[in-house]
Amino acid sequence: MKQDTLRYRLLEAQLELARRGDRAVVLLLTGHAVTHKGQLVNRLNHWLDNRHTEVHALAPSSEEQARPYWWRYWRRVPERGRVGIFIHGWHGDALFARAERRLSPGAFEDRLARIREFEAELAAAGVVLVKLWMDIGRHAQRERLQALQADPALAWQVGPVEWQRHVQHAAIQALGRRLRDATDVPYASWKRLALRAPDEQLPRVGEALLDALEAPSASPRPVVASSLAALPEAPALLHTDPEVARRLDKSRYRERLAAAQARLAINAREAARRRLPVVIVFEGQDAAGKGGSIHRLTAALDARQYRVHRIAAPSDEETLRPWAWRFWRRLPADGRIAIFDRSWYGRVLVERVEALARPDEWQRAFAEIRQFEQQQLEHGGVVIKLFLAISKEEQLRRFEARAATPHKRHKLTDEDWRNRERWDDYRLAIDEMFAATHRHGAEWTLVGCDDKRRARLAVIDTVNAHLEARLQSSR
Amino acid sequence: MKQDTLRYRLLEAQLELARRGDRAVVLLLTGHAVTHKGQLVNRLNHWLDNRHTEVHALAPSSEEQARPYWWRYWRRVPERGRVGIFIHGWHGDALFARAERRLSPGAFEDRLARIREFEAELAAAGVVLVKLWMDIGRHAQRERLQALQADPALAWQVGPVEWQRHVQHAAIQALGRRLRDATDVPYASWKRLALRAPDEQLPRVGEALLDALEAPSASPRPVVASSLAALPEAPALLHTDPEVARRLDKSRYRERLAAAQARLAINAREAARRRLPVVIVFEGQDAAGKGGSIHRLTAALDARQYRVHRIAAPSDEETLRPWAWRFWRRLPADGRIAIFDRSWYGRVLVERVEALARPDEWQRAFAEIRQFEQQQLEHGGVVIKLFLAISKEEQLRRFEARAATPHKRHKLTDEDWRNRERWDDYRLAIDEMFAATHRHGAEWTLVGCDDKRRARLAVIDTVNAHLEARLQSSR
Repeated sequence: MKQDTLRYRLLEAQLELARRGDRAVVLLLTGHAVTHKGQLVNRLNHWLDNRHTEVHALAPSSEEQARPYWWRYWRRVPERGRVGIFIHGWHGDALFARAERRLSPGAFEDRLARIREFEAELAAAGVVLVKLWMDIGRHAQRERLQALQADPALAWQVGPVEWQRHVQHAAIQALGRRLRDATDVPYASWKRLALRAPDEQLPRVGEALLDALEAPSASPRPVVASSLAALPEAPALLHTDPEVARRLDKSRYRERLAAAQARLAINAREAARRRLPVVIVFEGQDAAGKGGSIHRLTAALDARQYRVHRIAAPSDEETLRPWAWRFWRRLPADGRIAIFDRSWYGRVLVERVEALARPDEWQRAFAEIRQFEQQQLEHGGVVIKLFLAISKEEQLRRFEARAATPHKRHKLTDEDWRNRERWDDYRLAIDEMFAATHRHGAEWTLVGCDDKRRARLAVIDTVNAHLEARLQSSR
Repeated sequence: MKQDTLRYRLLEAQLELARRGDRAVVLLLTGHAVTHKGQLVNRLNHWLDNRHTEVHALAPSSEEQARPYWWRYWRRVPERGRVGIFIHGWHGDALFARAERRLSPGAFEDRLARIREFEAELAAAGVVLVKLWMDIGRHAQRERLQALQADPALAWQVGPVEWQRHVQHAAIQALGRRLRDATDVPYASWKRLALRAPDEQLPRVGEALLDALEAPSASPRPVVASSLAALPEAPALLHTDPEVARRLDKSRYRERLAAAQARLAINAREAARRRLPVVIVFEGQDAAGKGGSIHRLTAALDARQYRVHRIAAPSDEETLRPWAWRFWRRLPADGRIAIFDRSWYGRVLVERVEALARPDEWQRAFAEIRQFEQQQLEHGGVVIKLFLAISKEEQLRRFEARAATPHKRHKLTDEDWRNRERWDDYRLAIDEMFAATHRHGAEWTLVGCDDKRRARLAVIDTVNAHLEARLQSSR
């Protein structure tokens, strides 16, 4: 399959999964050290819609250590409609615990039995499992370790753990064989991938995932779809960059995008090293390009570091508590990045305009939001807020283009058209939101989005500027 | 108010709160050391229905430390319809952090401002706050510390922290005054209680809580009530103790109950000391007396150590995941006790009988349940499973008594009568459940409940026997 075709089909299949919501998909990668696992997950993640994807590479917390082993994985089982990716996961735990003699041979066999049971239970509940073993010969591994270590830009990827796993190559090979034999079942079979360059390996990983996404569904379930009404047009105070009229040509764009992403990768790694928590808020009108901007932003990030939270209608556990509870629970831990595709600002936008909150409730929310962000700042967090604005004319053009394109038609709903009619109400709400919440340390950045390319660059530049300001000040 | 009246009104008001589900109540106790706070919370908790109560005394986990300070309290905000009790809580944090100079004077003032904001936000969302300051003079405190230390049975209550707080009595007194001044607002005012014996103090704490429970509701909300259909009668293989026919007289019962509870208190404290996680499952027919048995059991426990999970219909976040997810998330941490009022066995009882699960699903559940319990055992947990059985005749008598008693009428629903009609279906399901899940280390104990007193004793004795067996074997 051509790479572009694969990528397109993966995204389509994932969106179809999210729409149907009939099962979850879990992709597990484990195997030898320095087999590009992290890189592959990052690239694959870039292909996927990260509003429906979560990546896990575990270092168990004290809350996890204080409970039965499997608790840490049960709490991370993805919801139906979502894709969960685990690096090493329960297979790696078993493998390395045995290699490092933290598990006796008998305990290792018991663990394999537990893995079979756990996977059977997931499969029975409609979770599709994809298990990949990343292989490499001992000699090739040594060469890769040495090459990485010799390159100053890559040397951080090699530490004592990688060398220890190289020394234990034969043991890991044998344990891996036993692991795969013991847990290879029809509904969760292993696929073994020999070392290749990431460019060659990626299609193989992608195809394995595509098979899982496209597998026929056992029992159709009702579609559970709920989405927050989108915001319309920009308020008067938003001025778009006059440069926007002149579109940025594609080759310049690509060059500048690559440079901005490279900077972002460095900044994000440094933020993780210093354990800075980062929150990035995306608000803006429908069709302004939030999804595309988030996609370009996360392309530069390590999939293990961030999570995208798509904010739709609250769950019933959330409606039973004060409104801010559902945002508090999503705050990132130190060193992590939480990206909000819509956010707590819905309280003073859609909930206000659609009368889902009473006037006293949304009025109070301005102060509550300021406090919420203030508390993140006091904890040492970075708060970056982006409002993506397009003109009313451009929005109409995009709506019409969506309606005309078969695979984009699902992005356009009746609600989108309805929201356009409430233009002035939203305009007032947005004006007041800026006035009340544009504060030192938690400033809003307005991004004119009539030109998508400039907008995407502006988003990444803004995030870079905020991170760099913080990293320099706290040096 | 007479103590019995107060107790009755508290319970009624709490059940009314749970039924209406229109707000949550948060009770906060802080103040000087050795003012019976723990004891008062335990006794109060015994008066309340602990299926709707949660008690928190925090030592922040690594996941909490890695997030903004308030995250640890936001995640513990009770659902509407529930009561949350905090010992020290955010007030104690501020007070002692300043006394121990972990907060500067300026940071302490900032924290007080944050407390005002947090409480305003809760109050606005319909959370009623009750704030109690426990006072004691310096001289009286010294006497109490010395008396406690001299009593071998109570000396564990006094450690270096208590002595340090005694040394800092004047500072804590002054900081407490400032704390109360700064956070005393109409919707969350402070009540200051001078030291009294727990018997005298308890009514004052109870009345403060009662005021909060009975306060008129600002805006009525729809009642969200969902309950799992109850199980009917015992299966044939259940034999009730022949002794049951002879009722146990009240004074004998009280004597034996007190002795069993005293034993349980010691066993539970030892389990906490050794960081054993304990799971206690209650299943049984409707009106068999699960609620009353749980109540007598928890009377002997420290409210900070246990939590009762009432299992009703799954939330929508739960229905999006494999069925066992909602039980995994409720597993206790090491040293804690989780009591399940109905449990994962609903999968093979009500879900089977009412066809809420497909035959392949509930059949598979037998193995899944065995694995779930096995994993708790492997982690070092104690699993105690109680089935409370009554005869069909006794159930009828109790249903009729409930129907005839105004304040018990709400306990009886049409579902209860409907379940009686599915007698044989449940009988088969229960028989198969025992056959499949009565396993070494996770045995079922059948308790004949036609005599409530004997049943309650049998429940506590069973829990004691299990705990003692484990505590002896792991010594």
